[in-house]
Amino acid sequence: MNFKEIIQDTYQKVKNIEDRGQLATYIPELANVNSESFGVHISTIDKVSFGIGDCSERFSIQSIAKVLSLSLAYGILGEKIWDRLGVEPSGTAFNSLIQLEADNGIPRNPFINAGAIVISDILLSNLENPKEDFLAFVRNISNNLEINYSTKIAASEKTVGFRNTALCNFIKSLDNIQNNPSDVLNFYFDLCSIEMNCKELSELLLFLANNGARTFDNSQVVTKSQSKRINALMQTCGFYDESGEFAFKVGLPGKSGVGGGIIAIHPNQYAIAVWSPKLNKKGNSNKGMKFLEEFTTKSQLSIF
Amino acid sequence: MNFKEIIQDTYQKVKNIEDRGQLATYIPELANVNSESFGVHISTIDKVSFGIGDCSERFSIQSIAKVLSLSLAYGILGEKIWDRLGVEPSGTAFNSLIQLEADNGIPRNPFINAGAIVISDILLSNLENPKEDFLAFVRNISNNLEINYSTKIAASEKTVGFRNTALCNFIKSLDNIQNNPSDVLNFYFDLCSIEMNCKELSELLLFLANNGARTFDNSQVVTKSQSKRINALMQTCGFYDESGEFAFKVGLPGKSGVGGGIIAIHPNQYAIAVWSPKLNKKGNSNKGMKFLEEFTTKSQLSIF
Amino acid sequence: MNFKEIIQDTYQKVKNIEDRGQLATYIPELANVNSESFGVHISTIDKVSFGIGDCSERFSIQSIAKVLSLSLAYGILGEKIWDRLGVEPSGTAFNSLIQLEADNGIPRNPFINAGAIVISDILLSNLENPKEDFLAFVRNISNNLEINYSTKIAASEKTVGFRNTALCNFIKSLDNIQNNPSDVLNFYFDLCSIEMNCKELSELLLFLANNGARTFDNSQVVTKSQSKRINALMQTCGFYDESGEFAFKVGLPGKSGVGGGIIAIHPNQYAIAVWSPKLNKKGNSNKGMKFLEEFTTKSQLSIF
Amino acid sequence: MNFKEIIQDTYQKVKNIEDRGQLATYIPELANVNSESFGVHISTIDKVSFGIGDCSERFSIQSIAKVLSLSLAYGILGEKIWDRLGVEPSGTAFNSLIQLEADNGIPRNPFINAGAIVISDILLSNLENPKEDFLAFVRNISNNLEINYSTKIAASEKTVGFRNTALCNFIKSLDNIQNNPSDVLNFYFDLCSIEMNCKELSELLLFLANNGARTFDNSQVVTKSQSKRINALMQTCGFYDESGEFAFKVGLPGKSGVGGGIIAIHPNQYAIAVWSPKLNKKGNSNKGMKFLEEFTTKSQLSIF
Repeated sequence: MNFKEIIQDTYQKVKNIEDRGQLATYIPELANVNSESFGVHISTIDKVSFGIGDCSERFSIQSIAKVLSLSLAYGILGEKIWDRLGVEPSGTAFNSLIQLEADNGIPRNPFINAGAIVISDILLSNLENPKEDFLAFVRNISNNLEINYSTKIAASEKTVGFRNTALCNFIKSLDNIQNNPSDVLNFYFDLCSIEMNCKELSELLLFLANNGARTFDNSQVVTKSQSKRINALMQTCGFYDESGEFAFKVGLPGKSGVGGGIIAIHPNQYAIAVWSPKLNKKGNSNKGMKFLEEFTTKSQLSIF
Repeated sequence: MNFKEIIQDTYQKVKNIEDRGQLATYIPELANVNSESFGVHISTIDKVSFGIGDCSERFSIQSIAKVLSLSLAYGILGEKIWDRLGVEPSGTAFNSLIQLEADNGIPRNPFINAGAIVISDILLSNLENPKEDFLAFVRNISNNLEINYSTKIAASEKTVGFRNTALCNFIKSLDNIQNNPSDVLNFYFDLCSIEMNCKELSELLLFLANNGARTFDNSQVVTKSQSKRINALMQTCGFYDESGEFAFKVGLPGKSGVGGGIIAIHPNQYAIAVWSPKLNKKGNSNKGMKFLEEFTTKSQLSIF
Repeated sequence: MNFKEIIQDTYQKVKNIEDRGQLATYIPELANVNSESFGVHISTIDKVSFGIGDCSERFSIQSIAKVLSLSLAYGILGEKIWDRLGVEPSGTAFNSLIQLEADNGIPRNPFINAGAIVISDILLSNLENPKEDFLAFVRNISNNLEINYSTKIAASEKTVGFRNTALCNFIKSLDNIQNNPSDVLNFYFDLCSIEMNCKELSELLLFLANNGARTFDNSQVVTKSQSKRINALMQTCGFYDESGEFAFKVGLPGKSGVGGGIIAIHPNQYAIAVWSPKLNKKGNSNKGMKFLEEFTTKSQLSIF
Repeated sequence: MNFKEIIQDTYQKVKNIEDRGQLATYIPELANVNSESFGVHISTIDKVSFGIGDCSERFSIQSIAKVLSLSLAYGILGEKIWDRLGVEPSGTAFNSLIQLEADNGIPRNPFINAGAIVISDILLSNLENPKEDFLAFVRNISNNLEINYSTKIAASEKTVGFRNTALCNFIKSLDNIQNNPSDVLNFYFDLCSIEMNCKELSELLLFLANNGARTFDNSQVVTKSQSKRINALMQTCGFYDESGEFAFKVGLPGKSGVGGGIIAIHPNQYAIAVWSPKLNKKGNSNKGMKFLEEFTTKSQLSIF
């Protein structure tokens, strides 16, 4: 079977399972989707592009944006970035404050909220027009000018983001935030509000399957070494407290968002994006996880 | 450059760095080695076998034995084994009791001490002659009858193993140990006392690069799926609180021991064993980590 | 109303409340009591002695023995004893290992299990015949030769004491136990097995209401300053994670045991012992707590 | 010796010890005092009033204000107040976020920052003009119209209060703050900014030694029962992670502030205020702690 057949097959199988997951409802806007949505799109470095289901419908990529902000900040600061955050799995719930206190304000990794907030602070200090520059960076990766922030989602997030406000002020009190906390938070909420569909997402992240380079012109988004390291980080830390489970069952580096999106990378082969908004108890897309487990089992293409 | 040249090159380079690591001294027997020892051996599935330095000197494999005990127990129980332990990185020091309390006696993964103790308990309940049967299993994998326990190391460990005794009794109090704690501990200390050299170790673990099968006769030690999952676990949990760092810098599944050994697996390609007894602050071989980082950089063969 | 009337009144009132507490059942022997038992006895320094209900029936004093072992060890070592343990409330469940790890093996106070185990270790190092000498010390306080260990309870405890075994070995690994852990534990379980009735208990602890001196001959069991300090410790740490609640509602220093006994001290006035074996969720006698709250409210004799 | 002589004696003795404590410097305004200041004032219910040293110099009472805000809120809500916070010692550093997470946003007690912030939220919901009404309440207790906020201190605190901002937003995210976090924080910083001298402070808090009633007209500030309970809370929770130590060495309910003030209450006898701005490692006045230890030892008037 080729990718297309495996995806069609797996899609049908997973589509019909009873989904006991829950929509993320902590912001009203996020709950404002069809909970039965389910889309998949794969983009390979040898130019296969195939999608199924709701793969053209845009959704809020939420934490998947952390891969993008890390990529931009990593490119700017290089390895010095690791003075400000770690590369270890967090081992506890994704926005826990406990470990941060023990680690004196150094977030465990760039994919927990604390780490992504520090990344936002870094970008704020290093970009001239942070919001515009970041969007330009993202659009440029896949040459897609339609990618944009959702002002509605960002605004909605700002009204209820007490925990992230706590987190940012806490890190500030531990001296690992340089800018004004409310500026950092506004930028962070903007980043998370970006909307894309599965096709756009798989095309965008394909550079991480291609040693850091855009496939259409081979220009580097990040260096080859940085690309491998971002993949390693997604492998160990991309799914909050379910990162080990994802490595174990899916066997690919990946990143999830509470909007129900998941991106997975097979180095030197493909990027695949899945979207289904009902989340399991660990906060990852229920059908998305099941699809990718089934897909890598069938395609026998885990990296392990 | 081929593997041989890269290994020679890297070996010389790393050999001469000043090594500020420390010997593990918590048991006298472990400190009883030449602290400057440094050996490397690679075994590939297409039958390359190459070693350098002290690659024929035996050392205490310690926690690397956890890969073996997991393999045996996983083969016996299948996926039911995950009722007794998890697959997530621990996020804190390798023998911490904190998370265990929060998780009601279910160790985070089979590679922290708590998890390996539960695996020992499982084997004790499922093997007729646990100590003999386990050794037979290990010897059988690479057809190497010279592999053996060190009674000295095991005895030495038993006199100072207060923390592991605490751990085992604690898990027992949380109802996740079925046998008598002192029997479990004796067996656990025996497992950790196995001695091998780098050549033997790379030959032994090569089955994990070969989808779970012995290379010389293609008989399965564990299933293909189990082999991938053991590799995924080594990737996310194999180096205690430095697992992310190892994934990040080396990019291969691997497992370390406080005896100074490290094994790393490149699926479908090779197993490489490194030994140098001085440990860094996280308890992993200092030169071993540096060698593998350099080696995968030069060979450009990280899985990411 | 005088003490006698208040006690009679309160006893009747509390006796008839529906008691949803649970017997401690972790050792079979402890569950082997009439769960409806309820006794009270007061002994005052001006020689009032009054009891009601099952005040002459012996029960396992369990953790109340920690006051006695502290008294003996404190008398031997003086203030140097605080090199080995602290005087702060623990703030978490009574036998938690978490804080101990953070505090490098120094238990927060002598009334959590960890602290009482360290006290046992101290006594073991300082007494010639620990078990006999400790009993002699206790008997001597109130001149009561009938007080004794329960070999049944101690034996029962030893078969299930995994958590205390964990605790003791853990502290040993942190270098705050000098003797062999199993010797320390055997002694500790012996101490906790002492049996007394409410009358005996209130007579025994009366010295803490009398500035450390036996009332019948004014000889000091501990110094006046030590007596005040033991009372202060009971006030802040005597009821595990309900110490604040007890101070708040009862307003007297006191100590509870999982056998259902509670002793409370009114400095310069009296010692009162209550016994009822059903425990609330925090592990303290349900009726005992209610009785003492009611009693101090009616007698208006809280120390605050 | 009477109080006056003991105070004079103790004052001289403690005044001359070398003080290695440190000024609180986290807000510039707090560091803006003479670090050698040292004052004491006692007010008794039988109308003794005696002061020594810098007892007429005003200082920032900081956390001592938590006793006042609790008194006002407790009077308004009665026992229902304990739905929103606990009465147990915190057992960890005074502004730790760890326990709060475990306890789902219910602060352990009203004297840690988290608890005082919840109290501020309660007052904000229940007072018409919170800032004015609270000041009126405080002034009314001792009929002292000169007590006032320090706008400088409050403003200074607002510029650096990241940790309290974190705390308040964190509790809000756990649903135990009803008002806007920045309103709660502004009010909280105002409360802490109140300035008084030792004489004023001892006169103000004397109602807690008098069963909740003002001594000059016997009108109740809080009920008798509430007064006892506030004293019990000060006893178990008044000194952050040194509460046990204070109970142990001083033996009186009390409350400290980072401005270097301490108030201690002897029920039915007196209130004593001490001020010296250099703090020990636990954040309590170094000389203040020593003075009170010495004072209660000499006067033999601990409550235990």
